Amino acid sequence: MKQTDLLVKMVIDRWNGSIVNLNKHVQALSDEQLQKEVAPGKNRGSYILGHLIAVHDDMLRLLDMGEKLFPELYEIYIKQADKVATQTPSGIELRAMLDKQNSFFQEKFESLTSEEWLEKHTAVSEEDFLKEPQRNKLNILITRTSHLQYHLGQLVLLS
Amino acid sequence: MKQTDLLVKMVIDRWNGSIVNLNKHVQALSDEQLQKEVAPGKNRGSYILGHLIAVHDDMLRLLDMGEKLFPELYEIYIKQADKVATQTPSGIELRAMLDKQNSFFQEKFESLTSEEWLEKHTAVSEEDFLKEPQRNKLNILITRTSHLQYHLGQLVLLS
Repeated sequence: MKQTDLLVKMVIDRWNGSIVNLNKHVQALSDEQLQKEVAPGKNRGSYILGHLIAVHDDMLRLLDMGEKLFPELYEIYIKQADKVATQTPSGIELRAMLDKQNSFFQEKFESLTSEEWLEKHTAVSEEDFLKEPQRNKLNILITRTSHLQYHLGQLVLLS
Repeated sequence: MKQTDLLVKMVIDRWNGSIVNLNKHVQALSDEQLQKEVAPGKNRGSYILGHLIAVHDDMLRLLDMGEKLFPELYEIYIKQADKVATQTPSGIELRAMLDKQNSFFQEKFESLTSEEWLEKHTAVSEEDFLKEPQRNKLNILITRTSHLQYHLGQLVLLS
């Protein structure tokens, strides 16, 4: 295997592993548990889950993979803090979105070559990318995996 | 820059970024806050910090970078659960260990070439490594960054 292919695979494997763990923990929580704060006065599980789906949805734009699947989540789970929105998706709806999103990403991710992963993401200019080649699509996946793990560590406190 | 060098740099940058965030959050917490549970009935901040230092210390062995700096942490923070050990390092001692460890790693990490990062780690046999080249040193850093982020998401609940 070519070194670049190996390295890209390692990064994608870590993303996939994190998603597997997220699914496992979300499935283990009841909708009632999901509505609880992860610690007194902190975000609720449902907000954290919605936030993750919204942030991952935004990756579609950054990775040039098409339109967001759930644009309505941005206001509720990225722009606003927890407990601000009065109308939010139910636990059942969030779980369905997570499943749909994971299947969608899996298909999209498999279709990209290693060289394509190393192309610039859409939020950086051609000019800046020449100077900073690390601002590529794979780096978006690396930072989003970190972000996912950070919030996963919080979600597990609900079990 | 060679693709392999770029990819290795991206992974190391994410580790460094996570360490910077860990330091920032640990510095912002008082020793009293660090002694609190991150959520009712869950691990205390001091246990999580000790656990991170102990897990990172074990990387020295996996990366073939020499002996552990703090072998005494294994029993307290990896083998045992929180609140089992009766004698544990103070917040001041843990902070000093974290600083010492970070400086040590920074020096060691900078001395490794990309090709060396892609060599096998010490817990895999030559034979298995031929079949699974992803079991290299860089993958240890990828998984430990994930682990660090997971616990960082918990530590921030103390502030």
